[in-house]
Amino acid sequence: TAPCLFKDTGVCMLFAMPGVPHEMKGLMENEILPRLKKRAPRAVIAREVLRTAGIGESSLSEIVNSSGAIADDIELAYLPCFGQADLRLTAKGKTQKEAKAKLGKTLRKLKPVIAPYLFGKGEETLEAAVGALLTDKKLTLAVAESCTGGLFASRITSAPGSSAYFLEGSVAYSNEAKIRRLGVKKSTLVKYGAVSAQTAREMAAGVCKKSGADIGVSSTGVAGPTGGTKEKPVGLIYIALCFNGEVETRRLKLKMDRNHNQKRTANEMMTWLWRKAREA
Amino acid sequence: TAPCLFKDTGVCMLFAMPGVPHEMKGLMENEILPRLKKRAPRAVIAREVLRTAGIGESSLSEIVNSSGAIADDIELAYLPCFGQADLRLTAKGKTQKEAKAKLGKTLRKLKPVIAPYLFGKGEETLEAAVGALLTDKKLTLAVAESCTGGLFASRITSAPGSSAYFLEGSVAYSNEAKIRRLGVKKSTLVKYGAVSAQTAREMAAGVCKKSGADIGVSSTGVAGPTGGTKEKPVGLIYIALCFNGEVETRRLKLKMDRNHNQKRTANEMMTWLWRKAREA
Repeated sequence: TAPCLFKDTGVCMLFAMPGVPHEMKGLMENEILPRLKKRAPRAVIAREVLRTAGIGESSLSEIVNSSGAIADDIELAYLPCFGQADLRLTAKGKTQKEAKAKLGKTLRKLKPVIAPYLFGKGEETLEAAVGALLTDKKLTLAVAESCTGGLFASRITSAPGSSAYFLEGSVAYSNEAKIRRLGVKKSTLVKYGAVSAQTAREMAAGVCKKSGADIGVSSTGVAGPTGGTKEKPVGLIYIALCFNGEVETRRLKLKMDRNHNQKRTANEMMTWLWRKAREA
Repeated sequence: TAPCLFKDTGVCMLFAMPGVPHEMKGLMENEILPRLKKRAPRAVIAREVLRTAGIGESSLSEIVNSSGAIADDIELAYLPCFGQADLRLTAKGKTQKEAKAKLGKTLRKLKPVIAPYLFGKGEETLEAAVGALLTDKKLTLAVAESCTGGLFASRITSAPGSSAYFLEGSVAYSNEAKIRRLGVKKSTLVKYGAVSAQTAREMAAGVCKKSGADIGVSSTGVAGPTGGTKEKPVGLIYIALCFNGEVETRRLKLKMDRNHNQKRTANEMMTWLWRKAREA
């Protein structure tokens, strides 16, 4: 409902947009871009964004550079964000057909090179890629979260259609909840503590058992800013994945603030789950 | 680790910043703003941001305007976002003392006017305000989510220190999970459906009973984009709040896309919880 002001001076086009992001984006897509396109000189580009997970920007860049997959007339940009990195490829041409042909040639070479990390293109999210795999393979998922506090479940359920494979999530903050909700053994909590590979393991296995899901994912750790000790400092986090009754654990050592530690952990869990679902 | 380029031409100062938001913000705060402050002419301002929840921008603006609390020399801006609205007040003066005095005078008049909605100032979040109230009043919280899918728990646990009052969350997507995890009656699900005031009620009461928490909050609804029927269309959502064994329910009828419906619902739950905790 917010208006957008528009003035065409003949020399340039002036737009004044509302600040509310949702409304601004809608106006940009529906009103401004079409007007700009009409006016712009006929420089034709073709563009594709490839999305990767589980590899840092610099390692990804090494792999891509040494592969020689990117033709000289392709412009390549890296757009990293929290353990995910987008590769944006742009080709120019006199016609759309020419630009698309150039882009296609590079894409055919590049995709096999980054295949282990490539989960989607354009606006596709990692959780949607996970969802498509789980739906396709008829696998169900349950989640047991401590330090990520519901963030992982929230990302899973942000994907439309997630009720097809997502059975339930448990945010087990207290030790009592870990025991009662997930079947973590009291002796495990006493011997190893809530922040331990052993507890993460029992959380993932426990949520599978209680829910009957094929895959269980868990997190437990010290997100910060307080709660750290010498043995278990802020940023020490364990995650676990249970699949067909077999449980693996991983240890993370993060160095960011609370919210970034939570986001990064949720991303690591999501990437791991995506790989597992792809292999399954 | 990303660099920021800086060139002082004498006439103006040029900065080129990295695109990663986290790094950009750090550089802005630590490097750019101090340089700009040194250079800027001595126009002194005093500013305060008041944060409100549970009232739309236009209703808030009516209340504020008709109160006559805002002095003529105070600049007022409304910054709305998802059922929350910030009020930014700016006063100018020859000295900091003068600007602060002007601002203080308006604040003393304005605060009582918006008190029912005012939860914090500056960067304070609604979940932190909830956390401070629960900690202060020694109340514990448990959460049962269906359509918000962990988003509400994730917001609660984004606040540092939330382990002091947050016991557990349950993301009960399947009917089976609603029955087993939360004690929702099968007959309720059959008679009224998962998306109903009755189910929301039993979810909130159930998570209190299972966890022993003082307060339970729940959500169930059709977030979209699919899953809607004529009787229960996309955007129909029920939320419930259980406090001291008494349960209230509310019905929401939202009209946005899936992610916005989820965010808006989590905000309604958070605002309700904040009010309840304040009255408690």
